[in-house]
Amino acid sequence: MVRIQLYTDDKCFGPGIAQLLELVAERKSLRAAAQSMGMAYSKAWTVVRRCEESLGYPLLLSSTGGRHGGGAELTDEARAMLAGYRAYCRALNEAAERLFPDYFPGSGNPDGQ
Amino acid sequence: MVRIQLYTDDKCFGPGIAQLLELVAERKSLRAAAQSMGMAYSKAWTVVRRCEESLGYPLLLSSTGGRHGGGAELTDEARAMLAGYRAYCRALNEAAERLFPDYFPGSGNPDGQ
Repeated sequence: MVRIQLYTDDKCFGPGIAQLLELVAERKSLRAAAQSMGMAYSKAWTVVRRCEESLGYPLLLSSTGGRHGGGAELTDEARAMLAGYRAYCRALNEAAERLFPDYFPGSGNPDGQ
Repeated sequence: MVRIQLYTDDKCFGPGIAQLLELVAERKSLRAAAQSMGMAYSKAWTVVRRCEESLGYPLLLSSTGGRHGGGAELTDEARAMLAGYRAYCRALNEAAERLFPDYFPGSGNPDGQ
């Protein structure tokens, strides 16, 4: 298995923000999503804002209640980014498994967990 | 650019140990290699030992002078692993750039730094 981290000038989108967004979609709350990753809410908030800045579009819609009150959901752009990232990771992991024996002959394949 | 991290059951070989081994090859000393990465010698030693355990072969040969005295060099297996890893990363980065537009249409390519 390989870990896929996209870069533009800076680190831009990777496994951490992907997991966080998936949990927001599931739990409808950034606070609950952060909690279930063992991440402080303030850290999760910063991670999302930085990613939004580097992508140039919003990832989360806050529903009624303001910053601390209401829930959150993903924007259409966030959903599209997440789906693209997951599909891209699958394709690259397939390429990684296919190429592995060419570069490490005699080794077992790395675990495809 | 993608970051390639190999896994077996555990994290096993990635950019950090690769850079450390390259610096050992250059400086003939684990202490000097660690220093030039801003890494504590004890940490570098642990990183090398863990990687040796997970790969099942030694990465470093210590030359005369014992643990603290003499220099270090790479074993043949370490050299082969490092060369395989670098070539594998190049191949996967090429695949990553080639596949990128299929999954993120309309985006610029990630930086190939």
